[in-house]
Amino acid sequence: MIEKDLKIDIKRLMKTINESAEIGRLSRGGICRLALTDEDKEMRDLYVKWLKKIGLQVRIDDFGNIYGRKEGKNPDAPPVLIGSHLDTQPEGGRYDGILGVLAGLEVLTVLNESAIQTERPIEIINFTNEEGSRFEPPILGAGGLSGHFNQDFVYTRTDREGKAFLEELQRIGYHGEKRNRIQNSYCYLELHIEQGPVLEHKNLDIGVVTGIQGMDWLEVKITGQSDHAGPTPMNMRKDALYVASKLIQLIRDTIINYNEEATATVGRMAIKPNSINCVPGEVIFSVDVRHSDDTVKEYLSQVIIEKLSIAAATENVSIEINKIWETSSSHFSEELIQVISKTTEELGYTSQKMISGAGHDSKYMNEITPTAMIFIPCVDGKSHCQEEFTSQEAIEKGANLLLHTVCKLANA
Amino acid sequence: MIEKDLKIDIKRLMKTINESAEIGRLSRGGICRLALTDEDKEMRDLYVKWLKKIGLQVRIDDFGNIYGRKEGKNPDAPPVLIGSHLDTQPEGGRYDGILGVLAGLEVLTVLNESAIQTERPIEIINFTNEEGSRFEPPILGAGGLSGHFNQDFVYTRTDREGKAFLEELQRIGYHGEKRNRIQNSYCYLELHIEQGPVLEHKNLDIGVVTGIQGMDWLEVKITGQSDHAGPTPMNMRKDALYVASKLIQLIRDTIINYNEEATATVGRMAIKPNSINCVPGEVIFSVDVRHSDDTVKEYLSQVIIEKLSIAAATENVSIEINKIWETSSSHFSEELIQVISKTTEELGYTSQKMISGAGHDSKYMNEITPTAMIFIPCVDGKSHCQEEFTSQEAIEKGANLLLHTVCKLANA
Repeated sequence: MIEKDLKIDIKRLMKTINESAEIGRLSRGGICRLALTDEDKEMRDLYVKWLKKIGLQVRIDDFGNIYGRKEGKNPDAPPVLIGSHLDTQPEGGRYDGILGVLAGLEVLTVLNESAIQTERPIEIINFTNEEGSRFEPPILGAGGLSGHFNQDFVYTRTDREGKAFLEELQRIGYHGEKRNRIQNSYCYLELHIEQGPVLEHKNLDIGVVTGIQGMDWLEVKITGQSDHAGPTPMNMRKDALYVASKLIQLIRDTIINYNEEATATVGRMAIKPNSINCVPGEVIFSVDVRHSDDTVKEYLSQVIIEKLSIAAATENVSIEINKIWETSSSHFSEELIQVISKTTEELGYTSQKMISGAGHDSKYMNEITPTAMIFIPCVDGKSHCQEEFTSQEAIEKGANLLLHTVCKLANA
Repeated sequence: MIEKDLKIDIKRLMKTINESAEIGRLSRGGICRLALTDEDKEMRDLYVKWLKKIGLQVRIDDFGNIYGRKEGKNPDAPPVLIGSHLDTQPEGGRYDGILGVLAGLEVLTVLNESAIQTERPIEIINFTNEEGSRFEPPILGAGGLSGHFNQDFVYTRTDREGKAFLEELQRIGYHGEKRNRIQNSYCYLELHIEQGPVLEHKNLDIGVVTGIQGMDWLEVKITGQSDHAGPTPMNMRKDALYVASKLIQLIRDTIINYNEEATATVGRMAIKPNSINCVPGEVIFSVDVRHSDDTVKEYLSQVIIEKLSIAAATENVSIEINKIWETSSSHFSEELIQVISKTTEELGYTSQKMISGAGHDSKYMNEITPTAMIFIPCVDGKSHCQEEFTSQEAIEKGANLLLHTVCKLANA
């Protein structure tokens, strides 16, 4: 049962979200706050001030992950963790990641104000470099903490200018101690915007996230022959772009007829010579394949590879397909999913269970502690752009759900 | 009738072609010799030396076009012109344009050696900036001479660094006098590699060129919505690249079912945001439509515009199509075509009449004097690349055909 009078202060939460949005602010209201830049440092400094203001104990670990701890009645009990990230895409929005951290801050602020001390400690974590826009791969801070990436791998990631993660972490003064990493925890919760259109489309308040899709990245290279556009008759061409366009149709048809959840996206393409009066001689494009069942994901990738190979063989071109990246799917804690679902009902919010198509800090936290996520709708499903927007009402519901879920779990 | 013993010296011609290929030479045997660069100047200096060596009178006009004149028995008779260009694409071959100029030089060398003076004078012309790789549009020297472009337009064309045509023409010392332009001429002939695969494919020696196709350039912009690849279900996407790929199929199907000569090429494409895990929100692509009948060309462009608009309307995107460039077709002199065809037969060469899909100096010369072109096969139809190649045997036949055609016309 929940205590209905206990509520987050939406005005205060919006105020911290808006203050955050001033750091790295872009012209159309978005944010550019890449990991370990001066903007990231400025945000971290402000955030640590906020943590200390409400009396939390602050720790920084060796990946720059920042922890704010509210002690429990039983300090030795493994804590409930709340987390997400304050870094953004180069042209990011003001909610992706930020919402999860600042809603966590609001939850602890409310508990303090209400003089509530839970049985278990509660910690909120700001993870380093979730976006991966500056240092690839993404989710480095959480992946380092979980042991998915080793320390040396994380430290030696470099940005486009050749600056290393460790060097930049030290430069901004957030290179903490390995002993500050969280060791044992009871569970991990993350509130996030959906980044897709489903909740808005179905007019639902909450997505109870059951896991994260696995992902294959394929690279397809088609080699035909570049010819002068004028003197080469249509039937004597080896047009790589024409063949690529056939294959893109084939990929779409394959996936859309499979099931509702599977996706395949051709997002990146390079054409040579890419000249208005030349028949394209070479096209390279990417295929991003996702599904929550790794067997299905691999099956779909295989089907795409085979269909493309067969189709290209009937054209006058050669084809080469490589898998360039792969992540397996994550399946969140059934118990946590149940707690969140029940709390959603008790609060009178509408919801559905759903799979996350995007990666999150939860992906790697799920490897070391029971994990689950809460999604709230965002307008048009837009994210990773300045237009990213989610309503105050949606934020309020999401943060209240986080508050009551945390209370239950921290008293369990 | 032709004098069968009169022949060009293929070894000497290959030697000048090879010497030319040393100026601006690239690693794989091609040439980078953009108009009015230091390399162009070096080539022009050598070429003028060659002209003078065989006793030709050299003139430079106000566009930097270089004339070499062999006097006729009747100096007042309008001369027969032979021409092409010595500039190349950034990664060009060693024959495109160069063959026509140096074969002209060889023709006059042979006539001198054989102590043949024709009735009419003969002039060979090296035109400035045919390729248009440095100063757009292409064919500026011949277009200026013909009056298709006025002097001020030609002079104010700038390269990517902002340097103007006139400034560079003066810098390399080839800014001549307007009065040196050729005024009256009897006809213009140009020998060129085909730049397409037809002659090689049909195993023919010679293409007797009857004209140049007209050309429309369309720009198609498709606006969908950029979304995160993971969380956006396939059926809720507005994928601009998927729609573009459908339209590329449609363009090909439309043209290939029309007739053998028509071509439509999608050569250039820009995708936004062009990121592996983003649904493309915007695609812009070009369509190059060509046909020798301008009415057909315009009809085909119109059909493409209508079909694309209808197809896009059934998808969840908006479309905008603009015609960004247009040239009308050229039809060469029937009389010259007959003379070339007859001479081809007399020499025992196989041939067919054909349309040029590419533009040439002949395009604008045709506006001021009876014009025709001779094509010889090139390997795989390749040009505008280092691999551009044509056999010594093919060159020999082409140059001999030019020699005997010129003799006939200069004595007519």
